[in-house]
Amino acid sequence: MQYPSYIKKKTHTVVHYGNRGMDLENLLNLSNTYYEEKNIALIFKKPTPIGVVDVHYTSKGKVIDKAYFKAPSTLDYNGLYCKKYIEFEAKESQNKTSFPLHNFHPHQIIHIRRVLEHGGIVFIIIMMNQQVYLLDGKVFLDFIDQTERKSIPFSYISEYGHIIKEKIDPPLDYLKVVDQLYFGGNT
Amino acid sequence: MQYPSYIKKKTHTVVHYGNRGMDLENLLNLSNTYYEEKNIALIFKKPTPIGVVDVHYTSKGKVIDKAYFKAPSTLDYNGLYCKKYIEFEAKESQNKTSFPLHNFHPHQIIHIRRVLEHGGIVFIIIMMNQQVYLLDGKVFLDFIDQTERKSIPFSYISEYGHIIKEKIDPPLDYLKVVDQLYFGGNT
Repeated sequence: MQYPSYIKKKTHTVVHYGNRGMDLENLLNLSNTYYEEKNIALIFKKPTPIGVVDVHYTSKGKVIDKAYFKAPSTLDYNGLYCKKYIEFEAKESQNKTSFPLHNFHPHQIIHIRRVLEHGGIVFIIIMMNQQVYLLDGKVFLDFIDQTERKSIPFSYISEYGHIIKEKIDPPLDYLKVVDQLYFGGNT
Repeated sequence: MQYPSYIKKKTHTVVHYGNRGMDLENLLNLSNTYYEEKNIALIFKKPTPIGVVDVHYTSKGKVIDKAYFKAPSTLDYNGLYCKKYIEFEAKESQNKTSFPLHNFHPHQIIHIRRVLEHGGIVFIIIMMNQQVYLLDGKVFLDFIDQTERKSIPFSYISEYGHIIKEKIDPPLDYLKVVDQLYFGGNT
């Protein structure tokens, strides 16, 4: 299609690896702030681990002059809800038919297994095909353990995942799904 | 004392704010690695939150050109042990008679209160006078709530704190104190 020169064509934004999940992250951060302000839960996004190479000191404190992002070995979000330890990872997938597993670092998969062993609640939040799903950590590992596939078909996510409804406040009320799934609706 | 010029006098190292607690931090990181490798607990130091100002992209990934450290609103360490949520802060004090409370950001004090409300285990690890103490979060808040003082006298820490013994592996076995204090010795 030809656009007149005064209309800028809306181009597809290149999503850099570090920014992938940006929108979902914002929704979750707002939801976590809501949960904290209402004193419902204490769940936070962990800062991205960085390796600091150079710093200098100013009257206002230390300024980083050079640093790089490190691969996380745990999941992005963790915290406390109803006396329980909760940890989860949040990912957006542009792919409509399957969710690539290279979205996870190998150590993160090991970590999910360990959180389950130690009695924590662990899950993945996936934004895909205009829906947000919560996929239980055990169900996620079951898939990985049973196949050699490098991606999870969308059909698996839509069948075994639980839809998190978007609303005003909090924008993503994922604790409602957590209530049903891990507390039998009693919190 | 006069040193011969060929002997370098060991000078007292200036500890910058961001590095304070460096030795204690290393001891705790080694202990947490030990706990993880032995599959005893999953407790990690949270990365220091930073505000990224400038980045550039290279073939190896994103490089940070300018950033600054942000004040943390939660505590430095958190994780999962025996199905329980654990969170703590670790501080070294050079002061021998009292522990200055300005070591804590106001939001961290609020956060400690909230972790208790939500049924988590929360405490402070203080290295002071060549000893390492674990001070329960409730005991810490009791002090703050009952006085207007801006520092905790060392006598309070030595009376109500629990000594964490230094050993080889793990270097600081703080979970032994956690066992006695929060699990009645049964883990």
